[in-house]
Parts: sequence; C-alpha cells; structure tokens
Amino acid sequence: MVEEALTAERILEAAEEVLRRFGPAKATVVDVARALGVSHGSVYRHFPSKTALRDAVAERWLARVSKPLAEVAAEKGPAPERLRRWLDLLIELKRKKARDDPELFATYRELVADARDVVRVHVETLASQIAQILADGVEQGAFTIEDPVAAGWAVFNATTKFHKPSHASEWFDPGIDAAFEGVWSLVLGGLGVREAPAKARKKPAKK
Amino acid sequence: MVEEALTAERILEAAEEVLRRFGPAKATVVDVARALGVSHGSVYRHFPSKTALRDAVAERWLARVSKPLAEVAAEKGPAPERLRRWLDLLIELKRKKARDDPELFATYRELVADARDVVRVHVETLASQIAQILADGVEQGAFTIEDPVAAGWAVFNATTKFHKPSHASEWFDPGIDAAFEGVWSLVLGGLGVREAPAKARKKPAKK
Repeated sequence: MVEEALTAERILEAAEEVLRRFGPAKATVVDVARALGVSHGSVYRHFPSKTALRDAVAERWLARVSKPLAEVAAEKGPAPERLRRWLDLLIELKRKKARDDPELFATYRELVADARDVVRVHVETLASQIAQILADGVEQGAFTIEDPVAAGWAVFNATTKFHKPSHASEWFDPGIDAAFEGVWSLVLGGLGVREAPAKARKKPAKK
Repeated sequence: MVEEALTAERILEAAEEVLRRFGPAKATVVDVARALGVSHGSVYRHFPSKTALRDAVAERWLARVSKPLAEVAAEKGPAPERLRRWLDLLIELKRKKARDDPELFATYRELVADARDVVRVHVETLASQIAQILADGVEQGAFTIEDPVAAGWAVFNATTKFHKPSHASEWFDPGIDAAFEGVWSLVLGGLGVREAPAKARKKPAKK
C-alpha cells in the first residue's frame, strides 16, 4: 500500500474497522496504522493524537445521522408534516443502527460518550435543524411559537426517549410507537397546531 | 434480638443497609439475616426468595417518590399549577437522591433495573397521577385534551430527560432548568393552555 494515497478518509475507514474489531478501549493508533500498512507517524500527520482520531470517527458516525436530516430540514412544504418526517427519520436512523449491528452500536456509544465536544456540536446541529423547520412553520402560519430556537430545543428534549442512545433498550418495546404518537400530539399542540392532521377533534379548537 | 419482633418493615430496613454496604451484586439474604441477628429462615418466612426481598426493597424506594407525588395529584385548585408542582416535586426528589448519596443512588439504579415488574407498576402509578391532574384540568376548562390517560403518558414521556435516572448525569448541567422550562411551555401548549402563567404573549392566542 503506498503512503501517498493515505487520506484522512482512508484513515477514518480503517479506524472504524479497527474499533469494530477491538472496541474503543483497546484500539490504538498503531492498530490503525498496521491495518493500513503505514507507519503510525503517517496517521499522526493527519490526526495529531489518538483523541483527535477518535473524535473524527465519532463525528463521521454522527454525520451519518445529521446529514440526511439536514436535507429534510431544508425541504419546502408544510412545516408540521416536515417536522414529523424529520423526527421519523431521526428515530428510524437510530433504531436501524441499534438493530442492524448492536455490537457496533455499543462500540460507538462508548466512543461518543468520550467525545463530549463532538456530541455537543451534533446535538446543537439537530436542534437548529428543528428550529429551521419551526421558523418556516411560523412564517407559514402553521405554528404560533415566538422563539423557534428555544422551541427547537424543547422538541428535541421532549423526544429524548425516542432517539437518545441510552434509551435504545426501550426502542423495540411493543408500546414505543404509541408512546411516540402521544408525545407527537403534545408537541404539535405545543407548537400551536390545534387540529392534528387526519384526526378530527370533537370540540372546536377555541376555548 | 428476639425473633418475634421481626417484621417485614424491619427486614426491609436491614436489607437496605446491607445493600448500601455490599452492593446489589454481593448482598445476600444471609447477610440480611446476620444484620438482624436472626436465621435466614426467618427472613424467608416474610420474603420467599432473594428476588422477592430485592423487589420489596426496590418498591419501598420507589414509593418514597410516588407517595408524596400522590398527595400533590390529589390536591384541589387549578390543574396547570398543580401539574407544574407535581413535575417540580418529581424532579426535585430524583435530583435529591442523585445528589445527596450518589453511591446509594447508583446501588438502587442497579437494583431497580432488575425489578422490571416493580418499575412498570411504579411508572404506571406516576402516569396515572398525571392523568388525574389532567382530568381535573379538563373539568376546570383549563385543558382541551380528549384523553387524559394518553396525555398523562405523553407528559411523562416528554419529560423523561428530567426524571429518568439514566439521565442523572445531565441533571446538574447549567442549562438543565432552562431546558425544562422549554419542555414545560411545549407541554402546557400541548394541553391546550394558550397563555403561559406569568408570561404575556405578544400575539393573541387565536390563529
């Protein structure tokens, strides 16, 4: 393997494979270099420390969630439906990771737990994507909130149970989807939508 | 120590002390009997198995949360304020446990994780206390929800981050109270309260 082809991307791919094989506690930069057939110095030229490399791997993993969500956030069309699609996609991406490869999911949870700054930025990204949808919804007259940024955080926090990895063991409970529908109704009402789509209310929305 | 004074209550007190000292993994019924100066047979007459004893200890611990909350749920007066007091008390009781004796809190978290049926009943109790407040609120004309039981679960689930012990490490973050206020506003709006108490809105509540 020739060293000149060594890109950050290739190192990250190898690091992911090494992490999967050895787990975050045991994986070292030397293991990554060995997997690539390069010296550990070559790896350090791209990532100055083991922590930098681990953070970059964590970031890449989280980007696989935040990037497809960014596309939904940037769509046009009615904001309530878009918010619902955004939440459904977040939940589906997280469940898919937990279900398809539980071991890798556990590995990443451990890795991400140590990458606090990376997580902070990720969570801020998600909350601001929600805020973007909410701001559109206010402009469309669909939402009556006054502060889309604050409300974005509130929606993110109120749905914690359904997307935060520490709740993964609850995601396959039989009642989880009904539980989400309940929170979704509450959130929608909290944003000022008095009539849930496709569900007629018995009483008029005004008090 | 005379065996005739041996009540379930005294066994539970001793079991709590033994758990605190040895941790749930190591504590045995024999340890509990020894602490009481009785035979383990005497303990088994009250609790037929180690699991039954552990479940009873977990139940007792959780009742220290659900009992004071039941009193708030049963109060009279405006439901929105009562719901807020109920949530504030739940959060304060949980934080107090986590803060005052983190080691005992960790011990109980471990114990409670094994007592799934006990936890299920506890969580159902809390959700039904919320439902009780919500039903009162509907009668008072303060809430416009149609199903207080479903909405009770939704409020409980939407506030997970602030009371579920797996989130304890977040409870002392500087932004945690602001995060709760955001979710509270959303919840209150979701229940049909268009004006938050003590906070004037710029626009009329109607769309």
